[in-house]
Amino acid sequence: MKKEKKEPVEDAQRFEKDALRLHGLYRGKVEILPKCPIRGLDDFSIWYTPGVAEVCREITRYREKVFEYTNRANTVAIISDGTRVLGLGNIGPEAALPVMEGKAIIFKYLGGVDAFPVVLDTRDEDEIVKVCKYIAPSFGGINLEDIEKPKCFSILERLKKELDIPVWHDDQQGTATVTLAALINALKVVGKNKDEVKIAMIGAGAANTATFRLLTLYGIPSGNIIVVDSTGILNRERTDLMNDEEKWKICTLSNRENRRGGIKEALEGADVCIALSRPGPGVIKKEWIKAMSRDPVVFACANPVPEIWPWEAKEEGARIVATGRSDFPNQVNNSLCFPGMFRGVFDVQARSITDEMCLASAEAIAQFAEKKGIREDYIIPAMNEFDVFTEVAVAAGMKAIEQGIARRAIKEKDLRDVVIKRINESRERINRLIEKL
Amino acid sequence: MKKEKKEPVEDAQRFEKDALRLHGLYRGKVEILPKCPIRGLDDFSIWYTPGVAEVCREITRYREKVFEYTNRANTVAIISDGTRVLGLGNIGPEAALPVMEGKAIIFKYLGGVDAFPVVLDTRDEDEIVKVCKYIAPSFGGINLEDIEKPKCFSILERLKKELDIPVWHDDQQGTATVTLAALINALKVVGKNKDEVKIAMIGAGAANTATFRLLTLYGIPSGNIIVVDSTGILNRERTDLMNDEEKWKICTLSNRENRRGGIKEALEGADVCIALSRPGPGVIKKEWIKAMSRDPVVFACANPVPEIWPWEAKEEGARIVATGRSDFPNQVNNSLCFPGMFRGVFDVQARSITDEMCLASAEAIAQFAEKKGIREDYIIPAMNEFDVFTEVAVAAGMKAIEQGIARRAIKEKDLRDVVIKRINESRERINRLIEKL
Repeated sequence: MKKEKKEPVEDAQRFEKDALRLHGLYRGKVEILPKCPIRGLDDFSIWYTPGVAEVCREITRYREKVFEYTNRANTVAIISDGTRVLGLGNIGPEAALPVMEGKAIIFKYLGGVDAFPVVLDTRDEDEIVKVCKYIAPSFGGINLEDIEKPKCFSILERLKKELDIPVWHDDQQGTATVTLAALINALKVVGKNKDEVKIAMIGAGAANTATFRLLTLYGIPSGNIIVVDSTGILNRERTDLMNDEEKWKICTLSNRENRRGGIKEALEGADVCIALSRPGPGVIKKEWIKAMSRDPVVFACANPVPEIWPWEAKEEGARIVATGRSDFPNQVNNSLCFPGMFRGVFDVQARSITDEMCLASAEAIAQFAEKKGIREDYIIPAMNEFDVFTEVAVAAGMKAIEQGIARRAIKEKDLRDVVIKRINESRERINRLIEKL
Repeated sequence: MKKEKKEPVEDAQRFEKDALRLHGLYRGKVEILPKCPIRGLDDFSIWYTPGVAEVCREITRYREKVFEYTNRANTVAIISDGTRVLGLGNIGPEAALPVMEGKAIIFKYLGGVDAFPVVLDTRDEDEIVKVCKYIAPSFGGINLEDIEKPKCFSILERLKKELDIPVWHDDQQGTATVTLAALINALKVVGKNKDEVKIAMIGAGAANTATFRLLTLYGIPSGNIIVVDSTGILNRERTDLMNDEEKWKICTLSNRENRRGGIKEALEGADVCIALSRPGPGVIKKEWIKAMSRDPVVFACANPVPEIWPWEAKEEGARIVATGRSDFPNQVNNSLCFPGMFRGVFDVQARSITDEMCLASAEAIAQFAEKKGIREDYIIPAMNEFDVFTEVAVAAGMKAIEQGIARRAIKEKDLRDVVIKRINESRERINRLIEKL
């Protein structure tokens, strides 16, 4: 472990104090600037009236040309109603805005993607779907963020059906993709096979629900997975879940041996623990790790504090530990995925993001690390290995083309060139602005 | 006249050809960039998790602090359903987007205001009002743009009532403000008094309806104004307009002498003609100008071609002619107003934009020109007299404070300093980005 037995409190307090001061100093984090040259007022005859009229006419004739003549093709809306923000819960749209602005600058910094935060003064599912549809013509994609369950599932599904631009819920697909990437390499390190591995998933929220689906798509038999929610293990006797479509599906597909009980029982003999539940420590007890199979793999990904401290898991024999934190090895971090995912999706103008594209991205992330040499404390790239974003973009984009959902067909080499160019240009522009701040 | 008898066709065709090529080359006109420094990934611990959590908590405690800690206080939504775009009519949201992006870069370039285009896939009045209210927490102001009548009136009124951020419809308030500014100085040049001047308004669309209201607020007796729509002069016999709230109000307030007829009859003996109707030439006939009072003032502001060519009006004795075009003197251009208006409104955090603020801005624009020395061919500043934006901002902001609708009270001198600083910073950042394009 990089830092043994490090408590997060002091760091977090320092960051929080700085954050308050610096957010006030800069009065927010995003701004909207021209991407075209403006040499003087005369140029507005081209960018505005009278010249722009012809651009409007051309899009009136061929509506798809909006992706060529405006910034729509590179712009994602970050949509949140502020009902489930970080560990803070339902704090409302205004208080959620700083998080969405933060996400926006990550999109730009890592993926060269223009992201605009749209926080909503409604919590109603139908209304959220409606507003996304109404504002969609301004955007090339929709990123749902920090929306409470169960509506986050249905909003995602409905928008995917009703819009012909990609819709993404990072807490579902993003987390699932990065978790699978880490799992792929973890299994290689411990020498276990996806067909036989037994997985205990702790937590049945948006993240683990999507992860369950992606694990099975990857080829892990659903019967070999046991999922635990706050009431206990999911199985066919959990009739309390029959009205919860997502969870009931898991009840019927998972847990072949029909195990009963709680986290303790789920972990007995498991090869892998994937915890995406609630902040620890102590959610997972040390002794439960001891009861796992040989060479246990433990992902304890709650933020800000993992379900079990990494050193505790290690002491009880965990061979590989991953968390959501940057100050321990093996950070399972959504930011490894979404900037590259949207970069790729935008550069092939995909109409949606499929589970197959998530799978391809997970494999690309895993391969990126594998090429560098995986080991117990390096199963997934760190955030500063910037080239991984290119790999995600290319994997997602090529899969979209293969699946016939891309508006632009392009060769892998060319796609890679475009992706690299866009990310570099963007970084270069950011640096130029920062120089004098 | 700067350019006598110049036909616009050739210029416009060149601009349109360039526009199509250059919009395609740059793939749109706006991008979203960080306004805060990012020295490396570690800074995201401040701008994103874990640090940002404290900023969220602070806004949860004091909701108004969203204006301090995010970019909301400097961000305006440019809202359009694409139903009345330029002279192109109802072309829909996608085709309207290039215009809205153009407007966005004008906002930034001239006013240092961050403007994001939100084009809507609905034309329904209630739904447009709803979506504006839902997305309002992301924005410090709403700019309605290119929305057809009559709903543009009611949308503006409803949103003004229901939101506590400024709502603006440029085709109404912006045009009215700039037109009044030009009129104030024109009357000075011809030596006529606002109490006695007789005005014929050609066209009764959004622009002239709002202008009528602002003229009367300025002190022009409403009975001295005659308004003509496509059917004829508005008067108390126009029962066809009883269901059109805005026009019927004008029917009852204007035209004291109860004149009947069309444009010809409206212009007889008039001191001023304010035409905001449909593209000419020939909408206003030369001989009608001759029938006006001594020293006629003619505003022929339809775009791209004025209702009467300036040289024709001059030949018939017009002493002052203004148009909407930059290639003739006295351009009555909305862009003189809206960037400074929102700059001022944002810097005092006004809760709305009142007619009194429009009046104050119009007077500021007029005074700015007067100080430089007004004459027949200079009754209103040109767009490249950048200091005018500061004057508009300060006038609007101070009036908001006086009316008690500003969240921040600030002295005039300090407001002026802030305004200048924000506009200059913004221009400087734009130039830094452009250097290498």
